[in-house]
Amino acid sequence: MGFPAITSPRNQKVKTTVKLRRRKHRGKQGRTLIDGARELSRALSAGVNVTEIYFCPDLCNTVESRRLLEQLDEFAMDIYEVTENVFEHLAFGDRAEGLLAVAIPPDLGIKDLSLPENPLIAVVEGIEKPGNLGAVVRSADGAGISAVVVADQTTDLYNPNAIRASLGTVFTVPVCTATSKEVYDWLQKNGVTIFATSANGKNAYTDVDFHFPAAIVLGSEATGLSTVWGDTEINTINIPMHGLADSLNISNAAAVLFYEAQRQRSQKSVRPLAGQTPCA
Amino acid sequence: MGFPAITSPRNQKVKTTVKLRRRKHRGKQGRTLIDGARELSRALSAGVNVTEIYFCPDLCNTVESRRLLEQLDEFAMDIYEVTENVFEHLAFGDRAEGLLAVAIPPDLGIKDLSLPENPLIAVVEGIEKPGNLGAVVRSADGAGISAVVVADQTTDLYNPNAIRASLGTVFTVPVCTATSKEVYDWLQKNGVTIFATSANGKNAYTDVDFHFPAAIVLGSEATGLSTVWGDTEINTINIPMHGLADSLNISNAAAVLFYEAQRQRSQKSVRPLAGQTPCA
Repeated sequence: MGFPAITSPRNQKVKTTVKLRRRKHRGKQGRTLIDGARELSRALSAGVNVTEIYFCPDLCNTVESRRLLEQLDEFAMDIYEVTENVFEHLAFGDRAEGLLAVAIPPDLGIKDLSLPENPLIAVVEGIEKPGNLGAVVRSADGAGISAVVVADQTTDLYNPNAIRASLGTVFTVPVCTATSKEVYDWLQKNGVTIFATSANGKNAYTDVDFHFPAAIVLGSEATGLSTVWGDTEINTINIPMHGLADSLNISNAAAVLFYEAQRQRSQKSVRPLAGQTPCA
Repeated sequence: MGFPAITSPRNQKVKTTVKLRRRKHRGKQGRTLIDGARELSRALSAGVNVTEIYFCPDLCNTVESRRLLEQLDEFAMDIYEVTENVFEHLAFGDRAEGLLAVAIPPDLGIKDLSLPENPLIAVVEGIEKPGNLGAVVRSADGAGISAVVVADQTTDLYNPNAIRASLGTVFTVPVCTATSKEVYDWLQKNGVTIFATSANGKNAYTDVDFHFPAAIVLGSEATGLSTVWGDTEINTINIPMHGLADSLNISNAAAVLFYEAQRQRSQKSVRPLAGQTPCA
Protein backbone atom coordinates (compact mmCIF):
# COMPACT_ATOMS: atom_id res chain seq x y z
CA MET A 1 0.00 0.00 0.00
CA GLY A 2 1.29 3.45 -0.80
CA PHE A 3 -0.95 6.17 0.46
CA PRO A 4 -0.03 9.79 1.23
CA ALA A 5 1.17 10.04 4.84
CA ILE A 6 0.16 12.65 7.39
CA THR A 7 2.44 12.99 10.39
CA SER A 8 1.36 16.28 11.96
CA PRO A 9 -1.89 17.10 13.76
CA ARG A 10 -1.43 20.62 12.38
CA ASN A 11 -1.95 19.37 8.83
CA GLN A 12 -4.75 21.40 7.20
CA LYS A 13 -6.80 18.32 6.23
CA VAL A 14 -6.63 17.05 9.79
CA LYS A 15 -7.76 20.40 11.13
CA THR A 16 -10.74 20.51 8.73
CA THR A 17 -11.68 16.92 9.63
CA VAL A 18 -11.44 17.39 13.39
CA LYS A 19 -13.90 20.27 13.10
CA LEU A 20 -16.54 17.73 12.01
CA ARG A 21 -16.87 16.67 15.67
CA ARG A 22 -18.96 19.84 16.00
CA ARG A 23 -22.47 19.97 14.61
CA LYS A 24 -22.04 23.48 13.25
CA HIS A 25 -19.16 22.35 11.07
CA ARG A 26 -20.93 19.18 9.98
CA GLY A 27 -23.75 21.41 8.72
CA LYS A 28 -21.33 23.85 7.07
CA GLN A 29 -19.23 21.16 5.38
CA GLY A 30 -22.21 18.87 4.62
CA ARG A 31 -20.15 15.98 5.92
CA THR A 32 -19.85 13.75 8.98
CA LEU A 33 -17.35 11.40 10.59
CA ILE A 34 -17.51 7.62 10.70
CA ASP A 35 -15.43 6.08 13.50
CA GLY A 36 -14.63 2.38 13.53
CA ALA A 37 -14.29 -0.53 11.15
CA ARG A 38 -17.74 -2.14 11.27
CA GLU A 39 -19.28 1.30 10.96
CA LEU A 40 -17.21 2.14 7.90
CA SER A 41 -17.81 -1.29 6.32
CA ARG A 42 -21.56 -0.89 6.66
CA ALA A 43 -21.46 2.63 5.23
CA LEU A 44 -19.46 1.41 2.24
CA SER A 45 -21.73 -1.60 1.64
CA ALA A 46 -24.73 0.69 1.82
CA GLY A 47 -23.27 2.91 -0.88
CA VAL A 48 -22.73 5.94 1.36
CA ASN A 49 -20.59 8.63 -0.30
CA VAL A 50 -17.35 8.27 1.70
CA THR A 51 -14.95 11.01 0.62
CA GLU A 52 -11.85 10.37 2.76
CA ILE A 53 -10.41 7.58 4.87
CA TYR A 54 -7.70 8.04 7.50
CA PHE A 55 -6.02 4.93 8.85
CA CYS A 56 -3.29 4.16 11.35
CA PRO A 57 -1.96 0.62 10.71
CA ASP A 58 -0.64 0.19 14.27
CA LEU A 59 -4.12 0.78 15.70
CA CYS A 60 -5.92 -1.55 13.28
CA ASN A 61 -6.03 -4.48 15.65
CA THR A 62 -9.45 -6.03 15.12
CA VAL A 63 -10.38 -8.63 12.50
CA GLU A 64 -12.75 -6.21 10.85
CA SER A 65 -10.25 -3.36 10.70
CA ARG A 66 -7.51 -5.56 9.25
CA ARG A 67 -9.93 -6.85 6.64
CA LEU A 68 -10.78 -3.30 5.62
CA LEU A 69 -7.10 -2.38 5.53
CA GLU A 70 -6.46 -5.07 2.97
CA GLN A 71 -9.19 -3.69 0.73
CA LEU A 72 -8.07 -0.07 0.79
CA ASP A 73 -6.23 -0.40 -2.55
CA GLU A 74 -9.56 -1.07 -4.24
CA PHE A 75 -11.21 2.08 -2.97
CA ALA A 76 -11.43 5.25 -5.03
CA MET A 77 -11.72 7.95 -2.36
CA ASP A 78 -8.82 9.95 -0.83
CA ILE A 79 -6.96 7.75 1.65
CA TYR A 80 -4.27 8.89 4.08
CA GLU A 81 -1.98 6.91 6.34
CA VAL A 82 -1.54 8.76 9.62
CA THR A 83 0.66 8.42 12.68
CA GLU A 84 -0.77 7.28 16.01
CA ASN A 85 -0.54 10.82 17.32
CA VAL A 86 -2.49 12.23 14.37
CA PHE A 87 -5.06 9.45 14.66
CA GLU A 88 -5.75 10.01 18.33
CA HIS A 89 -6.19 13.69 17.50
CA LEU A 90 -8.69 12.85 14.74
CA ALA A 91 -10.53 10.23 16.76
CA PHE A 92 -10.93 12.42 19.84
CA GLY A 93 -9.26 9.98 22.19
CA ASP A 94 -11.35 7.05 20.99
CA ARG A 95 -9.02 4.62 19.25
CA ALA A 96 -11.81 3.54 16.88
CA GLU A 97 -9.77 0.59 15.61
CA GLY A 98 -7.45 2.85 13.62
CA LEU A 99 -10.04 3.77 11.00
CA LEU A 100 -11.87 7.03 10.50
CA ALA A 101 -13.74 8.29 7.46
CA VAL A 102 -15.39 11.45 6.23
CA ALA A 103 -18.70 10.96 4.45
CA ILE A 104 -21.54 12.93 2.90
CA PRO A 105 -24.51 11.59 4.90
CA PRO A 106 -27.62 10.45 3.05
CA ASP A 107 -30.45 12.98 3.05
CA LEU A 108 -33.71 11.05 2.85
CA GLY A 109 -37.14 12.53 3.36
CA ILE A 110 -40.14 10.57 4.56
CA LYS A 111 -41.46 10.37 0.98
CA ASP A 112 -38.29 8.53 -0.05
CA LEU A 113 -39.05 5.62 2.30
CA SER A 114 -40.20 2.53 0.50
CA LEU A 115 -42.02 0.25 2.87
CA PRO A 116 -42.44 -3.52 2.78
CA GLU A 117 -45.83 -5.13 3.04
CA ASN A 118 -47.15 -4.99 6.60
CA PRO A 119 -44.52 -2.55 7.85
CA LEU A 120 -43.47 -2.04 11.45
CA ILE A 121 -42.24 1.52 11.83
CA ALA A 122 -40.43 3.25 14.68
CA VAL A 123 -40.92 6.96 15.24
CA VAL A 124 -38.71 8.72 17.78
CA GLU A 125 -39.56 12.31 18.53
CA GLY A 126 -37.22 14.95 19.95
CA ILE A 127 -34.56 12.45 20.97
CA GLU A 128 -31.68 14.38 22.50
CA LYS A 129 -28.65 12.15 22.96
CA PRO A 130 -26.88 10.86 19.84
CA GLY A 131 -25.89 7.70 21.74
CA ASN A 132 -29.54 6.94 22.48
CA LEU A 133 -30.54 7.58 18.88
CA GLY A 134 -27.82 5.23 17.67
CA ALA A 135 -28.86 2.53 20.16
CA VAL A 136 -32.49 2.84 18.99
CA VAL A 137 -31.41 2.24 15.40
CA ARG A 138 -29.23 -0.70 16.48
CA SER A 139 -32.23 -2.28 18.23
CA ALA A 140 -34.43 -1.53 15.21
CA ASP A 141 -31.89 -3.37 13.05
CA GLY A 142 -31.91 -6.29 15.49
CA ALA A 143 -35.68 -6.51 15.72
CA GLY A 144 -36.17 -6.19 11.97
CA ILE A 145 -38.03 -2.88 12.10
CA SER A 146 -38.94 -1.63 8.59
CA ALA A 147 -37.89 2.00 9.09
CA VAL A 148 -36.92 4.50 11.78
CA VAL A 149 -38.30 8.00 11.43
CA VAL A 150 -36.68 10.72 13.53
CA ALA A 151 -39.37 13.34 14.12
CA ASP A 152 -38.68 16.92 15.18
CA GLN A 153 -35.02 16.10 15.55
CA THR A 154 -32.91 17.83 18.16
CA THR A 155 -29.75 15.85 17.46
CA ASP A 156 -28.48 15.20 13.94
CA LEU A 157 -29.14 11.69 12.68
CA TYR A 158 -25.59 11.31 11.41
CA ASN A 159 -23.87 12.65 14.52
CA PRO A 160 -20.63 10.61 14.79
CA ASN A 161 -21.73 9.30 18.20
CA ALA A 162 -25.08 8.17 16.77
CA ILE A 163 -23.29 6.37 13.92
CA ARG A 164 -20.96 4.70 16.42
CA ALA A 165 -23.74 3.67 18.85
CA SER A 166 -25.70 2.23 15.92
CA LEU A 167 -22.64 0.17 14.88
CA GLY A 168 -23.15 1.71 11.45
CA THR A 169 -26.69 0.33 11.09
CA VAL A 170 -27.88 3.92 10.68
CA PHE A 171 -26.63 3.44 7.10
CA THR A 172 -28.42 0.13 6.51
CA VAL A 173 -31.76 0.48 8.32
CA PRO A 174 -34.08 2.81 6.35
CA VAL A 175 -33.99 6.04 8.36
CA CYS A 176 -35.17 9.55 7.67
CA THR A 177 -36.09 12.78 9.41
CA ALA A 178 -39.33 14.74 9.20
CA THR A 179 -41.52 17.01 11.29
CA SER A 180 -43.95 15.20 13.59
CA LYS A 181 -46.88 16.56 11.57
CA GLU A 182 -45.42 15.15 8.34
CA VAL A 183 -44.91 11.77 10.01
CA TYR A 184 -48.44 11.73 11.39
CA ASP A 185 -49.97 12.57 8.00
CA TRP A 186 -47.78 10.03 6.23
CA LEU A 187 -48.75 7.24 8.66
CA GLN A 188 -52.45 8.08 8.30
CA LYS A 189 -52.19 8.17 4.52
CA ASN A 190 -50.50 4.77 4.48
CA GLY A 191 -53.06 3.13 6.78
CA VAL A 192 -50.55 2.49 9.54
CA THR A 193 -51.95 2.08 13.06
CA ILE A 194 -50.23 4.45 15.48
CA PHE A 195 -49.21 3.33 18.97
CA ALA A 196 -48.08 6.35 20.98
CA THR A 197 -46.02 5.38 24.03
CA SER A 198 -46.58 7.29 27.24
CA ALA A 199 -46.46 6.71 30.98
CA ASN A 200 -50.24 7.17 30.97
CA GLY A 201 -50.86 5.06 27.89
CA LYS A 202 -54.24 3.26 27.98
CA ASN A 203 -53.04 -0.31 27.29
CA ALA A 204 -49.97 -2.20 28.37
CA TYR A 205 -47.75 -2.68 25.31
CA THR A 206 -48.27 -6.46 25.59
CA ASP A 207 -52.05 -6.08 25.32
CA VAL A 208 -52.18 -4.49 21.88
CA ASP A 209 -51.88 -6.22 18.53
CA PHE A 210 -48.82 -5.51 16.41
CA HIS A 211 -49.68 -7.98 13.64
CA PHE A 212 -50.91 -5.28 11.29
CA PRO A 213 -49.12 -2.25 9.77
CA ALA A 214 -48.04 -0.42 12.91
CA ALA A 215 -45.94 2.51 14.07
CA ILE A 216 -44.44 2.64 17.56
CA VAL A 217 -44.01 6.28 18.57
CA LEU A 218 -41.66 7.30 21.39
CA GLY A 219 -41.08 10.78 22.81
CA SER A 220 -38.17 12.34 24.64
CA GLU A 221 -37.65 11.42 28.29
CA ALA A 222 -37.69 15.07 29.29
CA THR A 223 -40.83 16.31 27.56
CA GLY A 224 -42.77 13.23 26.39
CA LEU A 225 -44.68 13.28 23.11
CA SER A 226 -45.83 16.47 21.41
CA THR A 227 -49.51 17.32 20.90
CA VAL A 228 -49.38 15.97 17.32
CA TRP A 229 -49.85 12.55 18.92
CA GLY A 230 -52.66 13.68 21.22
CA ASP A 231 -55.46 12.80 18.80
CA THR A 232 -58.09 10.81 20.71
CA GLU A 233 -58.20 8.24 17.91
CA ILE A 234 -54.58 7.27 18.51
CA ASN A 235 -53.92 4.15 20.56
CA THR A 236 -51.74 4.91 23.57
CA ILE A 237 -49.60 2.26 25.19
CA ASN A 238 -47.50 2.07 28.34
CA ILE A 239 -44.65 -0.06 29.54
CA PRO A 240 -45.60 -1.21 33.07
CA MET A 241 -43.18 0.20 35.63
CA HIS A 242 -42.87 -2.06 38.68
CA GLY A 243 -40.28 -0.03 40.59
CA LEU A 244 -39.57 3.54 41.60
CA ALA A 245 -38.46 5.14 38.34
CA ASP A 246 -41.35 6.27 36.15
CA SER A 247 -39.78 5.47 32.79
CA LEU A 248 -37.08 3.49 31.00
CA ASN A 249 -34.19 5.02 29.14
CA ILE A 250 -35.62 5.74 25.66
CA SER A 251 -33.39 3.24 23.88
CA ASN A 252 -34.36 0.52 26.36
CA ALA A 253 -38.04 1.34 25.98
CA ALA A 254 -37.63 1.17 22.20
CA ALA A 255 -35.91 -2.24 22.39
CA VAL A 256 -38.66 -3.68 24.61
CA LEU A 257 -41.41 -2.45 22.27
CA PHE A 258 -39.67 -3.46 19.02
CA TYR A 259 -39.02 -6.98 20.31
CA GLU A 260 -42.55 -7.44 21.65
CA ALA A 261 -43.95 -6.46 18.26
CA GLN A 262 -41.58 -8.88 16.59
CA ARG A 263 -42.41 -11.63 19.10
CA GLN A 264 -46.10 -11.27 18.33
CA ARG A 265 -45.44 -11.30 14.60
CA SER A 266 -43.35 -14.45 14.84
CA GLN A 267 -46.34 -16.26 16.31
CA LYS A 268 -48.60 -17.72 13.68
CA SER A 269 -51.96 -16.66 14.98
CA VAL A 270 -53.20 -13.31 16.17
CA ARG A 271 -52.73 -13.29 19.92
CA PRO A 272 -55.67 -12.67 22.26
CA LEU A 273 -56.14 -9.07 23.29
CA ALA A 274 -56.59 -7.79 26.84
CA GLY A 275 -59.68 -9.12 28.51
CA GLN A 276 -59.86 -12.19 26.34
CA THR A 277 -58.97 -15.60 27.70
CA PRO A 278 -55.73 -16.90 26.15
CA CYS A 279 -56.74 -20.51 25.64
CA ALA A 280 -60.48 -20.70 26.10
CA MET B 1 -31.76 28.30 55.64
CA GLY B 2 -28.35 29.18 56.93
CA PHE B 3 -25.67 26.85 55.67
CA PRO B 4 -21.94 27.52 55.36
CA ALA B 5 -21.19 29.10 51.99
CA ILE B 6 -18.40 28.13 49.59
CA THR B 7 -17.55 30.69 46.94
CA SER B 8 -14.20 29.49 45.60
CA PRO B 9 -13.46 26.39 43.51
CA ARG B 10 -10.09 26.34 45.29
CA ASN B 11 -11.76 25.55 48.62
CA GLN B 12 -10.16 22.43 50.09
CA LYS B 13 -13.49 20.58 50.49
CA VAL B 14 -14.33 21.26 46.88
CA LYS B 15 -10.95 19.97 45.76
CA THR B 16 -11.35 16.76 47.76
CA THR B 17 -14.88 16.26 46.42
CA VAL B 18 -13.97 16.87 42.77
CA LYS B 19 -11.37 14.12 43.06
CA LEU B 20 -14.22 11.62 43.55
CA ARG B 21 -14.88 11.80 39.80
CA ARG B 22 -11.88 9.48 39.54
CA ARG B 23 -12.19 5.83 40.49
CA LYS B 24 -8.83 5.77 42.27
CA HIS B 25 -9.96 8.48 44.64
CA ARG B 26 -13.37 6.90 45.20
CA GLY B 27 -11.53 3.80 46.33
CA LYS B 28 -9.11 5.77 48.49
CA GLN B 29 -11.79 7.91 50.15
CA GLY B 30 -14.39 5.11 50.30
CA ARG B 31 -16.94 7.54 48.93
CA THR B 32 -18.78 8.37 45.74
CA LEU B 33 -20.72 11.24 44.21
CA ILE B 34 -24.45 11.46 43.69
CA ASP B 35 -25.50 13.96 41.02
CA GLY B 36 -29.09 15.11 40.72
CA ALA B 37 -32.21 15.45 42.80
CA ARG B 38 -34.08 12.21 42.09
CA GLU B 39 -30.84 10.30 42.56
CA LEU B 40 -30.18 11.95 45.93
CA SER B 41 -33.80 11.51 47.05
CA ARG B 42 -33.67 7.81 46.32
CA ALA B 43 -30.34 7.41 48.10
CA LEU B 44 -31.72 9.18 51.17
CA SER B 45 -34.95 7.15 51.19
CA ALA B 46 -32.92 3.98 50.91
CA GLY B 47 -30.89 4.92 53.97
CA VAL B 48 -27.59 5.42 52.14
CA ASN B 49 -24.96 7.11 54.29
CA VAL B 50 -24.81 10.57 52.68
CA THR B 51 -22.02 12.58 54.30
CA GLU B 52 -22.17 15.92 52.49
CA ILE B 53 -24.57 17.85 50.30
CA TYR B 54 -23.61 20.78 48.07
CA PHE B 55 -26.40 22.88 46.64
CA CYS B 56 -26.66 25.92 44.42
CA PRO B 57 -30.11 27.49 44.85
CA ASP B 58 -30.06 29.23 41.43
CA LEU B 59 -29.60 25.90 39.67
CA CYS B 60 -32.32 24.05 41.60
CA ASN B 61 -34.98 24.50 38.94
CA THR B 62 -36.84 21.19 38.91
CA VAL B 63 -39.79 20.24 41.11
CA GLU B 64 -37.75 17.46 42.71
CA SER B 65 -34.74 19.67 43.46
CA ARG B 66 -36.87 22.43 44.97
CA ARG B 67 -38.62 19.86 47.14
CA LEU B 68 -35.29 18.57 48.42
CA LEU B 69 -34.08 22.12 49.02
CA GLU B 70 -37.00 22.71 51.38
CA GLN B 71 -36.09 19.64 53.41
CA LEU B 72 -32.40 20.43 53.84
CA ASP B 73 -32.96 21.88 57.30
CA GLU B 74 -34.10 18.47 58.54
CA PHE B 75 -30.94 16.69 57.40
CA ALA B 76 -28.05 15.94 59.72
CA MET B 77 -25.12 15.73 57.30
CA ASP B 78 -22.73 18.57 56.34
CA ILE B 79 -24.48 20.88 53.92
CA TYR B 80 -22.87 23.71 51.94
CA GLU B 81 -24.39 26.42 49.80
CA VAL B 82 -22.15 27.05 46.81
CA THR B 83 -21.98 29.58 44.00
CA GLU B 84 -22.85 28.66 40.42
CA ASN B 85 -19.16 28.70 39.52
CA VAL B 86 -18.26 26.31 42.34
CA PHE B 87 -21.18 24.04 41.49
CA GLU B 88 -20.28 23.72 37.82
CA HIS B 89 -16.78 22.84 38.96
CA LEU B 90 -18.11 20.14 41.30
CA ALA B 91 -20.64 18.78 38.80
CA PHE B 92 -18.16 18.53 35.95
CA GLY B 93 -20.19 20.66 33.56
CA ASP B 94 -23.38 18.73 34.24
CA ARG B 95 -25.80 21.07 35.98
CA ALA B 96 -27.33 18.16 37.89
CA GLU B 97 -30.26 20.31 39.06
CA GLY B 98 -28.05 22.18 41.52
CA LEU B 99 -27.63 19.25 43.90
CA LEU B 100 -24.61 17.07 44.51
CA ALA B 101 -23.85 14.76 47.41
CA VAL B 102 -20.99 12.71 48.77
CA ALA B 103 -21.94 9.27 50.08
CA ILE B 104 -20.41 6.11 51.47
CA PRO B 105 -21.73 3.52 49.02
CA PRO B 106 -23.34 0.35 50.37
CA ASP B 107 -21.07 -2.68 50.28
CA LEU B 108 -23.26 -5.74 49.88
CA GLY B 109 -22.02 -9.21 49.15
CA ILE B 110 -24.07 -11.87 47.44
CA LYS B 111 -24.79 -13.54 50.78
CA ASP B 112 -26.47 -10.34 51.98
CA LEU B 113 -29.14 -10.57 49.28
CA SER B 114 -32.50 -11.58 50.60
CA LEU B 115 -34.65 -12.94 47.82
CA PRO B 116 -38.42 -13.03 47.48
CA GLU B 117 -40.25 -16.22 46.67
CA ASN B 118 -39.81 -17.16 43.01
CA PRO B 119 -37.04 -14.65 42.33
CA LEU B 120 -36.06 -13.29 38.94
CA ILE B 121 -32.39 -12.36 39.08
CA ALA B 122 -30.21 -10.41 36.65
CA VAL B 123 -26.51 -11.19 36.43
CA VAL B 124 -24.29 -8.90 34.37
CA GLU B 125 -20.71 -9.99 33.87
CA GLY B 126 -17.77 -7.77 32.99
CA ILE B 127 -19.91 -4.78 32.06
CA GLU B 128 -17.60 -1.93 31.08
CA LYS B 129 -19.51 1.32 30.74
CA PRO B 130 -21.00 2.84 33.88
CA GLY B 131 -23.82 4.33 31.79
CA ASN B 132 -24.79 0.85 30.58
CA LEU B 133 -24.65 -0.57 34.09
CA GLY B 134 -26.90 2.21 35.35
CA ALA B 135 -29.36 1.69 32.49
CA VAL B 136 -29.48 -2.07 33.26
CA VAL B 137 -30.39 -1.30 36.88
CA ARG B 138 -33.02 1.23 35.77
CA SER B 139 -34.61 -1.42 33.52
CA ALA B 140 -34.39 -3.98 36.33
CA ASP B 141 -36.25 -1.52 38.56
CA GLY B 142 -38.87 -1.01 35.84
CA ALA B 143 -39.37 -4.71 35.17
CA GLY B 144 -39.51 -5.63 38.85
CA ILE B 145 -36.37 -7.75 38.85
CA SER B 146 -35.61 -9.13 42.34
CA ALA B 147 -31.87 -8.38 42.35
CA VAL B 148 -29.02 -7.35 40.06
CA VAL B 149 -25.68 -9.09 40.61
CA VAL B 150 -22.63 -7.51 39.01
CA ALA B 151 -20.19 -10.36 38.37
CA ASP B 152 -16.47 -9.89 37.75
CA GLN B 153 -16.94 -6.16 37.75
CA THR B 154 -14.77 -3.95 35.59
CA THR B 155 -16.57 -0.72 36.43
CA ASP B 156 -17.49 0.25 39.98
CA LEU B 157 -21.15 -0.23 40.79
CA TYR B 158 -21.37 3.18 42.40
CA ASN B 159 -19.57 5.09 39.69
CA PRO B 160 -21.30 8.52 39.60
CA ASN B 161 -22.30 7.92 35.96
CA ALA B 162 -23.85 4.56 36.87
CA ILE B 163 -25.81 6.19 39.70
CA ARG B 164 -27.00 8.92 37.34
CA ALA B 165 -27.96 6.52 34.50
CA SER B 166 -29.88 4.40 37.02
CA LEU B 167 -31.79 7.51 38.18
CA GLY B 168 -30.69 6.51 41.67
CA THR B 169 -32.39 3.09 41.49
CA VAL B 170 -28.98 1.52 42.11
CA PHE B 171 -29.74 2.42 45.74
CA THR B 172 -33.23 0.91 45.79
CA VAL B 173 -32.97 -2.25 43.67
CA PRO B 174 -31.08 -4.98 45.57
CA VAL B 175 -27.63 -4.95 43.93
CA CYS B 176 -24.32 -6.53 44.84
CA THR B 177 -21.00 -7.54 43.35
CA ALA B 178 -19.34 -10.97 43.38
CA THR B 179 -17.05 -13.14 41.30
CA SER B 180 -18.76 -15.11 38.56
CA LYS B 181 -17.88 -18.34 40.35
CA GLU B 182 -19.51 -17.12 43.57
CA VAL B 183 -22.63 -16.12 41.64
CA TYR B 184 -22.81 -19.46 39.86
CA ASP B 185 -22.50 -21.42 43.11
CA TRP B 186 -25.04 -19.21 44.86
CA LEU B 187 -27.59 -19.65 42.05
CA GLN B 188 -27.10 -23.42 42.08
CA LYS B 189 -27.43 -23.58 45.84
CA ASN B 190 -30.66 -21.60 45.72
CA GLY B 191 -32.21 -23.73 42.99
CA VAL B 192 -32.34 -20.89 40.50
CA THR B 193 -32.46 -21.88 36.80
CA ILE B 194 -29.72 -20.14 34.86
CA PHE B 195 -30.35 -18.67 31.41
CA ALA B 196 -27.05 -17.61 29.87
CA THR B 197 -27.49 -15.17 26.99
CA SER B 198 -25.27 -15.55 23.96
CA ALA B 199 -25.42 -14.99 20.20
CA ASN B 200 -25.25 -18.79 19.83
CA GLY B 201 -27.73 -19.54 22.59
CA LYS B 202 -29.80 -22.67 21.92
CA ASN B 203 -33.30 -21.25 22.39
CA ALA B 204 -34.82 -17.95 21.47
CA TYR B 205 -35.46 -16.01 24.71
CA THR B 206 -39.20 -16.14 23.98
CA ASP B 207 -39.16 -19.95 23.85
CA VAL B 208 -38.00 -20.58 27.40
CA ASP B 209 -40.06 -20.49 30.56
CA PHE B 210 -39.35 -17.72 33.07
CA HIS B 211 -42.18 -18.65 35.46
CA PHE B 212 -39.87 -20.36 37.92
CA PRO B 213 -36.89 -19.03 39.94
CA ALA B 214 -34.64 -17.79 37.14
CA ALA B 215 -31.44 -15.88 36.54
CA ILE B 216 -30.81 -14.03 33.28
CA VAL B 217 -27.05 -13.83 32.71
CA LEU B 218 -25.54 -11.30 30.30
CA GLY B 219 -21.89 -10.89 29.33
CA SER B 220 -19.90 -7.95 28.02
CA GLU B 221 -20.35 -6.96 24.38
CA ALA B 222 -16.64 -7.24 23.76
CA THR B 223 -15.87 -10.64 25.24
CA GLY B 224 -19.19 -12.41 25.85
CA LEU B 225 -19.66 -14.66 28.87
CA SER B 226 -16.77 -16.28 30.74
CA THR B 227 -16.29 -20.04 30.93
CA VAL B 228 -18.02 -20.16 34.32
CA TRP B 229 -21.28 -20.14 32.34
CA GLY B 230 -20.12 -22.78 29.85
CA ASP B 231 -21.49 -25.72 31.84
CA THR B 232 -23.44 -27.95 29.45
CA GLU B 233 -26.31 -28.13 31.93
CA ILE B 234 -26.92 -24.41 31.65
CA ASN B 235 -29.73 -23.22 29.39
CA THR B 236 -28.46 -20.85 26.75
CA ILE B 237 -30.72 -18.30 25.11
CA ASN B 238 -30.38 -15.89 22.23
CA ILE B 239 -32.14 -12.73 21.15
CA PRO B 240 -32.96 -13.20 17.45
CA MET B 241 -31.08 -10.67 15.33
CA HIS B 242 -32.95 -9.87 12.13
CA GLY B 243 -30.53 -7.29 10.74
CA LEU B 244 -26.80 -6.81 10.19
CA ALA B 245 -25.52 -6.21 13.72
CA ASP B 246 -24.87 -9.38 15.68
CA SER B 247 -25.93 -8.11 19.09
CA LEU B 248 -27.87 -5.43 20.93
CA ASN B 249 -26.32 -2.89 23.26
CA ILE B 250 -26.12 -4.72 26.62
CA SER B 251 -28.62 -2.48 28.39
CA ASN B 252 -31.11 -2.93 25.53
CA ALA B 253 -30.63 -6.70 25.58
CA ALA B 254 -31.21 -6.66 29.34
CA ALA B 255 -34.40 -4.64 29.00
CA VAL B 256 -35.80 -7.00 26.33
CA LEU B 257 -35.07 -10.07 28.47
CA PHE B 258 -36.30 -8.61 31.76
CA TYR B 259 -39.58 -7.49 30.21
CA GLU B 260 -40.16 -10.81 28.42
CA ALA B 261 -39.70 -12.64 31.71
CA GLN B 262 -42.10 -10.25 33.37
CA ARG B 263 -44.60 -10.55 30.50
CA GLN B 264 -44.63 -14.33 30.89
CA ARG B 265 -45.04 -14.06 34.64
CA SER B 266 -47.95 -11.65 34.33
CA GLN B 267 -49.81 -14.29 32.33
CA LYS B 268 -51.79 -16.66 34.51
CA SER B 269 -50.83 -19.96 32.97
CA VAL B 270 -47.47 -21.36 32.05
CA ARG B 271 -46.94 -20.50 28.38
CA PRO B 272 -46.30 -23.21 25.82
CA LEU B 273 -42.67 -23.93 25.08
CA ALA B 274 -41.06 -24.10 21.65
CA GLY B 275 -42.45 -26.87 19.50
CA GLN B 276 -45.72 -27.06 21.40
CA THR B 277 -48.89 -25.74 19.84
CA PRO B 278 -50.11 -22.60 21.64
CA CYS B 279 -53.82 -23.39 21.84
CA ALA B 280 -54.18 -27.05 20.95
